[in-house]
Amino acid sequence: MSSTAGQVIRCRAAVAWEAGKPLVLEEVEVAPPQAMEVRLKILFTSLCHTDVYFWEAKGQTPLFPRIFGHEAGGIVESVGEGVTDLKPGDHVLPVFTGECKECRHCKSEESNMCDLLRINTDRGVMLNDGKSRFSIRGQPIYHFVGTSTFSEYTVAHVGSVAKINPAAPLDKVCVLSCGISTGLGATLNVAKPKKGSTVAIFGLGAVGLAAAEGARIAGASRIIGVDLNSKRFDEAKKFGITEFVNPKDHEKPVQEVIAEMTGGGVDRSVECTGNINAMISAFECVHDGWGVAVLVGVPNKDDAFKTHPVNLLNERTLKGTFFGNYKPRSDLPSVVEKYMNKELELEKFITHSVPFSEINKAFEYMLQGDGLRCIIRMDA
Amino acid sequence: MSSTAGQVIRCRAAVAWEAGKPLVLEEVEVAPPQAMEVRLKILFTSLCHTDVYFWEAKGQTPLFPRIFGHEAGGIVESVGEGVTDLKPGDHVLPVFTGECKECRHCKSEESNMCDLLRINTDRGVMLNDGKSRFSIRGQPIYHFVGTSTFSEYTVAHVGSVAKINPAAPLDKVCVLSCGISTGLGATLNVAKPKKGSTVAIFGLGAVGLAAAEGARIAGASRIIGVDLNSKRFDEAKKFGITEFVNPKDHEKPVQEVIAEMTGGGVDRSVECTGNINAMISAFECVHDGWGVAVLVGVPNKDDAFKTHPVNLLNERTLKGTFFGNYKPRSDLPSVVEKYMNKELELEKFITHSVPFSEINKAFEYMLQGDGLRCIIRMDA
Ligand SMILES: NC(=O)c1ccc[n+]([C@@H]2O[C@H](COP(=O)([O-])OP(=O)(O)OC[C@H]3O[C@@H](n4cnc5c(N)ncnc54)[C@H](O)[C@@H]3O)[C@@H](O)[C@H]2O)c1
Ligand SMILES: NC(=O)c1ccc[n+]([C@@H]2O[C@H](COP(=O)([O-])OP(=O)(O)OC[C@H]3O[C@@H](n4cnc5c(N)ncnc54)[C@H](O)[C@@H]3O)[C@@H](O)[C@H]2O)c1
Ligand SMILES: [Zn+2]
Ligand SMILES: [Zn+2]
Ligand SMILES: [Zn+2]
Ligand SMILES: [Zn+2]
Repeated sequence: MSSTAGQVIRCRAAVAWEAGKPLVLEEVEVAPPQAMEVRLKILFTSLCHTDVYFWEAKGQTPLFPRIFGHEAGGIVESVGEGVTDLKPGDHVLPVFTGECKECRHCKSEESNMCDLLRINTDRGVMLNDGKSRFSIRGQPIYHFVGTSTFSEYTVAHVGSVAKINPAAPLDKVCVLSCGISTGLGATLNVAKPKKGSTVAIFGLGAVGLAAAEGARIAGASRIIGVDLNSKRFDEAKKFGITEFVNPKDHEKPVQEVIAEMTGGGVDRSVECTGNINAMISAFECVHDGWGVAVLVGVPNKDDAFKTHPVNLLNERTLKGTFFGNYKPRSDLPSVVEKYMNKELELEKFITHSVPFSEINKAFEYMLQGDGLRCIIRMDA
Repeated sequence: MSSTAGQVIRCRAAVAWEAGKPLVLEEVEVAPPQAMEVRLKILFTSLCHTDVYFWEAKGQTPLFPRIFGHEAGGIVESVGEGVTDLKPGDHVLPVFTGECKECRHCKSEESNMCDLLRINTDRGVMLNDGKSRFSIRGQPIYHFVGTSTFSEYTVAHVGSVAKINPAAPLDKVCVLSCGISTGLGATLNVAKPKKGSTVAIFGLGAVGLAAAEGARIAGASRIIGVDLNSKRFDEAKKFGITEFVNPKDHEKPVQEVIAEMTGGGVDRSVECTGNINAMISAFECVHDGWGVAVLVGVPNKDDAFKTHPVNLLNERTLKGTFFGNYKPRSDLPSVVEKYMNKELELEKFITHSVPFSEINKAFEYMLQGDGLRCIIRMDA
């Protein structure tokens, strides 16, 4: 038992008081974990588009003040009633979605969309009592996707916390909490390219590059990167992308360009843009007979996916994935092991690093499209 | 060697001289098979919607005079140069699509869409010389999808002929040449329901009922039949359909009705209507996390499949199939064995039988929507 167990912890957190305004480092009070909850000491966190998106809160119901952050690595400080899978000192990755191990989804081999702990961006409180564990002078501060890792200490449901190898460097594997695992799993768990096959990746942000990393690990012979921003190609080469297509450089639809490059289409495609046209192109560029397209990007509310049904009847498969089909608790430990045994490279995703006191710089990098992942060091 | 090998054979064929006009029984001349072709004596054939569709030739380029027919069972009479897989006396099922065993599709485990022998409804001649093997007093009569089984003898490419167990009754297994295998394979090879799962079948024609038969064989616990025609339900019960939904009986979309009946959606759905709305409903009625929808029906040229991409991101899979993903030569023999070992029931699909001389009656039954399959006995 740590000496802080059962006590309120006072620590630093970066609080978003208003939409789009710089975060403010505040002293917050973090209540002890309740039943089936754990309190974590966060050591490293990184910034993902989803944080920025809900911080900007454009076209969203704003929920402020709030503590963002959902890609992180930490250590269990104390556990609440009923928690048996985790104990103080365990090294963990908190995750924006969860695995209760009891619902139909958790019991299905195929799904990771837990009924209890599936991402809910509108909820700012804990499930157990509908309240927040964060407060400043009595004022509750909302949680974000059950993680709120922009705080030295945070409370999460045990089902949203993956226990990992304590030898893994948390400043590297923290990026596996969200985008990198999403892209990697989209390729390895869902698209499943065979050795020697051709793969197209739409969108060369962190998620798309992680999908490319998956294709490299799977032994794809050609990895075609597609992005509207040609600057992305330089970085993409490090991720095994062998060819680059910018749809803007062509008169004909990009799916036709790819079909010509590959004698009828790629074996697999993974869409990581969130753009509906890219989703349709990613589907239509796979080969008939065996092609599989996987959608990862989060679309707009009013988007419609539209294609001629003959594209399906010609034996193409269309799938979507959430968090790369990884079950957080069951599967993330093995992704960490992929990094530990040097199968998976993470260093190339980490382009910046800032102390916690400069967290707003991480937001600036992302808003400027500068780099892929910025690690925020909580102890500095 | 049969005494007819190498000779022109004179025999009876039902010739369609004009679109939509009754077939006329004529004496035709059937030329010997050329390289990689075989000549077959047809013993039983049955009628499928596709015959009727191209006979009516509405919105098609008409190709007449033509000999239709593509579901049949027969015996090899003679073989052309280079044919090693078949010999006179072999019992066979001719198929409207083929398997050359050489192309990328034939070499892929996943595809059955042979580049050389994939269905081509516009071609009325043989591949080898671009000519017909049928003639009447010197006038060539066009072939249909490489089978033309409404003739006592026909010529087919060896790649479109499946050799089967000679003990199998051809008057039953002839229906495996097209629609029944299509529906059965859509379920068993593509949707792959697990034992105990829930399955929705859209469209309760012969193809949909064969899909239901597949679900029964796979051990589905609930098989929900969906059809606009409530009369179909009585027959459907014989095929293991446990519940029936007529979309016309409900205010809300049928996918919502099914979601309510099943606690969120079925595990698998198979669409066998050709109607675009049914295709969309069939997709949207599968459960998130693991649901798989398979499209079988042939859509109209201008149809667009349209859905919100979130339905995909929530881990639903959408697939289409052609001939139930069976490779004709490699896989049909094992489907025949399923019938032989009583796993698969075929008798319930056969609702009528007529002598060849009354083949136009089979067209009438189908046009009236009377029954499922009518066997045409060539020797009568
Ligand atoms: N499904 C999940 O579980 C999950 C998890 C994390 C992120 N995501 C989603 O994945 C997507 C990618 O995330 P990211 O962080 O890599 O984003 P990003 O913005 O860094 O990268 C997206 C890239 O797509 C490119 N792009 C946009 N439209 C395009 C088009 N029509 N054709 C080709 N390229 C196009 C952009 O130029 C950019 O380089 C986002 O939609 C994000 O919301 C999904
Ligand atoms: N993909 C292939 O390889 C292949 C092979 C053979 C047949 N097919 C196709 O399969 C489909 C079915 O063939 P069949 O011979 O069983 O046809 P059928 O006409 O006998 O049966 C179709 C059934 O669908 C029902 N239906 C139509 N619209 C509907 C809707 N919106 N909702 C619910 N039910 C609806 C009809 O009432 C009918 O009972 C056709 O489109 C056919 O072209 C495909
Ligand atoms: Zn669960
Ligand atoms: Zn994220
Ligand atoms: Zn082939
Ligand atoms: Zn047919």
